[in-house]
Parts: sequence; structure tokens; C-alpha cells
Amino acid sequence: MRITPAEGMNEFLPGEVELRDSMTEKIVGVYRSFGFTKISTPALESIENLDNSDGGDNLRLIFRVLKRGKKLEDALEKGDPSGLCDLGLRYDLTLPLARYWANNRSRLPDPFKCIQIDRAYRAERPQKGRSREFVQCDVDVIGSDSLDSEVELITVTARALMKLGIGAFNVRVNDRRVLRDVIRSCGFSDDCCSSVAVTVDKLDKIGEDGVRDELVGKGYPAECAEKLIDTLCRRAFGEDDIEKHADPAVAEEFCKMIRRARELSGGEYGVVFDPSLVRGQGYYTGAVFEIESTEFGGTVAGGGRYDGLIGRFIGENVPAVGFSIGFERIFSILKESKRPAGGKKKAAVFYGDGEVVEATKLADTMRSEFDVTLVRRKKKVGKQLAALEETGFSRAVFLDRPDEIKTFGEEHKTNEKEEKQ
Amino acid sequence: MRITPAEGMNEFLPGEVELRDSMTEKIVGVYRSFGFTKISTPALESIENLDNSDGGDNLRLIFRVLKRGKKLEDALEKGDPSGLCDLGLRYDLTLPLARYWANNRSRLPDPFKCIQIDRAYRAERPQKGRSREFVQCDVDVIGSDSLDSEVELITVTARALMKLGIGAFNVRVNDRRVLRDVIRSCGFSDDCCSSVAVTVDKLDKIGEDGVRDELVGKGYPAECAEKLIDTLCRRAFGEDDIEKHADPAVAEEFCKMIRRARELSGGEYGVVFDPSLVRGQGYYTGAVFEIESTEFGGTVAGGGRYDGLIGRFIGENVPAVGFSIGFERIFSILKESKRPAGGKKKAAVFYGDGEVVEATKLADTMRSEFDVTLVRRKKKVGKQLAALEETGFSRAVFLDRPDEIKTFGEEHKTNEKEEKQ
Repeated sequence: MRITPAEGMNEFLPGEVELRDSMTEKIVGVYRSFGFTKISTPALESIENLDNSDGGDNLRLIFRVLKRGKKLEDALEKGDPSGLCDLGLRYDLTLPLARYWANNRSRLPDPFKCIQIDRAYRAERPQKGRSREFVQCDVDVIGSDSLDSEVELITVTARALMKLGIGAFNVRVNDRRVLRDVIRSCGFSDDCCSSVAVTVDKLDKIGEDGVRDELVGKGYPAECAEKLIDTLCRRAFGEDDIEKHADPAVAEEFCKMIRRARELSGGEYGVVFDPSLVRGQGYYTGAVFEIESTEFGGTVAGGGRYDGLIGRFIGENVPAVGFSIGFERIFSILKESKRPAGGKKKAAVFYGDGEVVEATKLADTMRSEFDVTLVRRKKKVGKQLAALEETGFSRAVFLDRPDEIKTFGEEHKTNEKEEKQ
Repeated sequence: MRITPAEGMNEFLPGEVELRDSMTEKIVGVYRSFGFTKISTPALESIENLDNSDGGDNLRLIFRVLKRGKKLEDALEKGDPSGLCDLGLRYDLTLPLARYWANNRSRLPDPFKCIQIDRAYRAERPQKGRSREFVQCDVDVIGSDSLDSEVELITVTARALMKLGIGAFNVRVNDRRVLRDVIRSCGFSDDCCSSVAVTVDKLDKIGEDGVRDELVGKGYPAECAEKLIDTLCRRAFGEDDIEKHADPAVAEEFCKMIRRARELSGGEYGVVFDPSLVRGQGYYTGAVFEIESTEFGGTVAGGGRYDGLIGRFIGENVPAVGFSIGFERIFSILKESKRPAGGKKKAAVFYGDGEVVEATKLADTMRSEFDVTLVRRKKKVGKQLAALEETGFSRAVFLDRPDEIKTFGEEHKTNEKEEKQ
């Protein structure tokens, strides 16, 4: 049998799980403190729901689950491979949320402030840093069209990131409607906006020249491309300029939103308008956000308003806005930066034959301060102690030698310090 | 689109998730305090590993995942349905644990005391109380052949159940080797023991007559069946009698184990020898345990020693013993008994147009005591307040009327009490 995980799947060592659990606890703690509530949906959804959902390229990456029994036999007999499956693993948490909300709305608060931290699955080509099973971490507000929800989501997500201790970061915000107006004001026609936005989204990767070339390659006039790049990149397009380009009502609300989110940052992080911010997904309809870590680089959270998505699913207009923390990305950052996970201190009680009851009782007396593991004493205690020290233990005691206490690592240092004083 | 979950799948409302999360937190807290560490493995395993595993009837219940791309095309062309899948969803956490341990043993403590709380999947016929996706909650000790591990597992599992607050319970224990010796001492031959044990396992369901009939129906002599039932059920077969039937060395160790586990119970729960306890799985090799709730009825945890299982997987002899808490069963018990989940108290701050910043700042001042949600004031505040009361809120404050504080439920009662004093 094969002892490694299936291709592209991750498994985690105890120290890694401690870090992941502590991340989850911190994130959920902050979200709950803002009155968000956590839901849980199945990892398997009906294949029809998944195939008909708004997932773009992700639809090609669905893990499909074979039918069983008589239904499988019938499907095999028909010879139509498209009828072989009845279920699939979810590729994100947004489709399950939309279905869940439609199914349970009468029992949920309005608006519904929702937390999801759960696994999703995509059959991507295995590569470093990309797992086929990964945790997504979303907060969403369903049923509110007020930009107060944007302010709330920016604030609570930023607080969660601060709690995680990932160092300095900035929140970048834009609005799809502002972006569309800017694109139009440069001479592009209304129905080109999405296509132009897709190219603008690559600005970080391909630079100004790349964007110009791609736009011209798509058949747009060079002068429009030039004007757009000039507006987005060179003119120091600030908040004060939004009104010049965008619908005045949209501009006013959007600018208020930025100012309010900034005031609530208390100067702990930046909230900046970025006219070139697009965010990939096609379903965003209003504000879009992205959080960039200045200490570790790269995007650590992203989101936006998607008023159409849940509505399309249930045939009704439902406003919604969400913010997603890059759980796996932050896990890598924290793991590599070797910050302590923050669990309880660990101690060991060494014992011998026939002493398990006494050892447990001794361990119980230490459990208010430590997680205590019982260790059967072997001949080479030195090797056992070294293994404990390596796995982050602070203390070892011996049932038969109550006065001899071994301390390691941080606790050891603390002791030294105390002795010096 | 279909808005209900796929057939046989569960989704959970916010209050249910709060209860499930608080259960997980309590269980993991107790296990960690005994030095157990949590691991995480993928929900998808290679289909070969699953098909060749020791899962008995569960193997027929595996959700199988279709191959993708060229490999799927090739498999379809061959027309062999057995080659259509390359992955499957795990039906329990024991196979993943065995694979994980084999893959990571050099980086794990020896013995390895392990926690797993995670989802498993079985394509069972949907019925009440049985979901196709469910949480299993296992602790295992791998690499220890000492019965101290049994004592530790009984103690830590019982402590976890006490922490969960499910009321009184008893731990019943038996040993596969003792059971085998008892069966042999009644005149059955060595190779009948498993088959006889399978029938004895049904004692609770079909009674003494049912067991006698089934044994006779299997072709065993009526006098052996009679003698076995007499020994197990009527003779008040106690711990003192174990030595009469079983190998003296096994009997001595097993009785010591029971006495030690009982001493560590501190009288909070019973630890009783039950000569008729079998536990279904074929892979148990030594002690078996089951915990029965006296308050709610039925089994709430079960486990035993399975020295052969991990060894079979990696072609090596590895001792192992595990105990599994019936997470879903206990969730139903606690949900129906309507015990509070034990989260933080909840409060709401009502605010109006343009006040989101001030409302957030006011909420921040309350967050040490409450989870605080912002609520935009509507015209009919009474309806909004009623909804909050119904969902367990303790307090509502109004940004524009700082002196008017609404209290609900428990907090309300507390206030009344204070006033009376």
C-alpha cells in the first residue's frame, strides 16, 4: 500500500495542526466578537448544483463522485459518461453558502452575518504551494445593501489579521462601478469594460507596457489604452479625483466608505483607494477589496460585493458582500516565521512499572498550568528527554524523584533570568 | 437549482455549529491536557488504499471519485468500470491514521498519542440519525503494548465525556482473549471463536433465546450454546472469575488494568467488567471498551486494542489501542437536552444612517464581555428586538439613547434578582 497522501493532498504534523487550530480559534474569535455566526455545510454537493454554478474555470476542476448501485449500472449501460456522477466536492464555500441561505433564510437573522472556515477541493495540477484540498475562510453579509457592511467587513478582517500577528498590511479598495466609469471616460465603449478590466488586472504582472500591448492586441485604439494607463498609473489618481470620473452618487458613498473604514483602522493599517484594483472574479458588482502584507508580500485577503450571485442561484435579487482570508497562505507565512502557536506549555511525567495511577494523579496536579503527557521511563532517559526538548516541552518531572525537575527552552530561560535577578 | 443539501447530507444552523464547536473545544482541550496531539489527514485517499483496507462492510459504502482528463478517457475506452476511479472519500479515520503514521513515524513521538476529530463519509441508505457525512472523534496510542495505555485512554475519554456534561455513564470492559478463552471453555473449538463472538455481540438485541437459536442454527451443539449463555449471563461472572476461564498472565494484567482505571475514576463513573462485551469490528486483539450513558441510554464511546491493524498496513507488527467518542450521538443528546453551548454572551448595538463608526467604537467598549453585533435600526425596532431575544441575545443598546439598555433572558433574570436584593 501507498503510505504517502494521494497526489496533491496535504497532511499535517502535530505542531502544524496546533498552529492551524490556533489560527482558526483567533479568526473565529474575532469574527464572533463582531456578531458573525459560523455555519457548516457538507463537502459534497449535488453535481447539478456545482455544474450550473458561477465558478468559471473552477468548474473544470471539480472532483466528481461516481453513482452507486442500480443507478450506476443504468448509467454504465447507457454509456453516457456525463451521467456517471451524482455528487461532487465543492470547489469553494460560496455556492454552498448561497444554497444554505436559500434553504434556511427563514431561520436566519436578516441581514445574515456569516462565518465559514472549511475545506474545499480542486483537481488542479499538483504544484508547490497549491493543494487539491485546502481551507477557505470566508465572512459574508447577506441581505444588506448598505456600505456599512463593507466598513464592517474591512474592519473585522483587518482585526483578525492583526490577531494572527502577520505584521503590517494595507487594505486596498476600489469599486467596480468606479472602474467601469474610468474605463468609459477613456473612450472605451460600455460593452468592452469587462474585457478591458481583465487586462488591467494583470498590471502587477505584465506592467504598463504589457497592458498597453494587450489592449491594442485586443483591437482597442492605442490612444484609449494610453489614456487609461495614464489615468490609472501616472496621474496620482486619488480619492479626490473619483468624482471627476464616476457617477456622483456612487462616488460619494464609496468615498464615505473609505473614510469610515480608515477611521476605524485607528492608524494600525492603511486603507487606500487603488483605481487599478480589479479582483479576478466576474461576479463582483460594487466595492472590491484586497489586503496586502507589507512584511511578507503578496495578497493575504480579498473580497467584494456580489449582489447578483446569490440572487441568480435562487431567482431573486439578494445583496451580498464577502471577505475571504487566505488561510493557507497565512499558515505558510506563520509556519516559516516560526512564531509560537500559542498553546499551553507542555510537561512530561516519567513513571515506571505499576505506577500509572500515581503518575496520572501527579499529572493532574500540574494540569492547570501544563498539558501533561505520561512517559514510561526507558533505560536511556537522556534520549527521551532530548526528544521532549525538541518537540517544545517546557518541563519533565520524575515520579520516583520528586525533587528533580528538568526545565527546557523558554521556561529554562525564564528560570535563569529569575536566578540572575 | 436544488436548495436542500444532497441526499443524506447534513448542514447545521449557527446555534448547532456553536454547540458542535464547543464540544470539539472541550474534547480537544481534555485530550491535549493529557499530552495527546492532534493530526490532520486529507478526506480523499487513493482508492487502492481504501479498497484494500480492513473496513469490512464499510468498503461497499465508499464514495468513489472519478478520474479526470486523459486517464478518464482511457478508462472509459477500456470499458472496465473498476478502473474509472482513482480516489475515494475515507469511511473512517483509522486507515488514514495508519497511513499517516507509516509515512511520518520518524517525526512523531514514540509512543504516539494522537487526536483526530474530522469528517468521514459512507454511502449508507439515508435514514434518520444516520448521515452520509459525519464527524468521528478518535484518540489512539500507537507503539505501546503496555496496558497503561488502556488505563490512560479510559481515563481521558471519561474525562472528556464529563467535560461535555452528558450526565452519568459507565465504562464496560472486556478482553478479546478472555472472551475467546470463555468460548473455548464452553466446548467450542478454537476456529469457531469469531463466529460465536459475532452472535454473542447481539445479546442486547436478540436476548438469550435469540443467541441460543442462532448458535444452534450455525450448527454448534446446543449444550455448548447453553453453557456459554449460562457462563456469560447467569453466573454473575465477575472479575474474580476471570482467572478460572482465561490464561493466568492475561487475566492478571487485565484485572490490574480494570482496577487502575477504576481507581482513577475517583468514583465519578463506573468501570465494570462485562464478559459479554464483544464490539463489532474484527480487528480487535485485546481489551475492548464501551461507554454507556445511564442518563440518555445507548453507547456514547467505544474502542479497544488492535495490535494487528496498522502492522498489516505496513507489513510490520505495531501495537495500537484506540477509543472513539460518538460525536454525532452526543451532539444529538446535547442538542435535545437544550443545554447552553457555553459561548460568550451576545449583545447588539442599534445605530442609524452615518453612524457606523461611532457604533463600532461603542461595540468595542463592550467586547470584553459580549460578542457584539451592529444592527441598523429599522422603523419597527420592536420586531428587531424580538428576533434578538429569540436567538439568545442578552442585551441591546441604542447609540442615540445611551441610557436605554434592553436586557433579555438570563441577564434579565439576573437583573431582577439584583434589584430584589
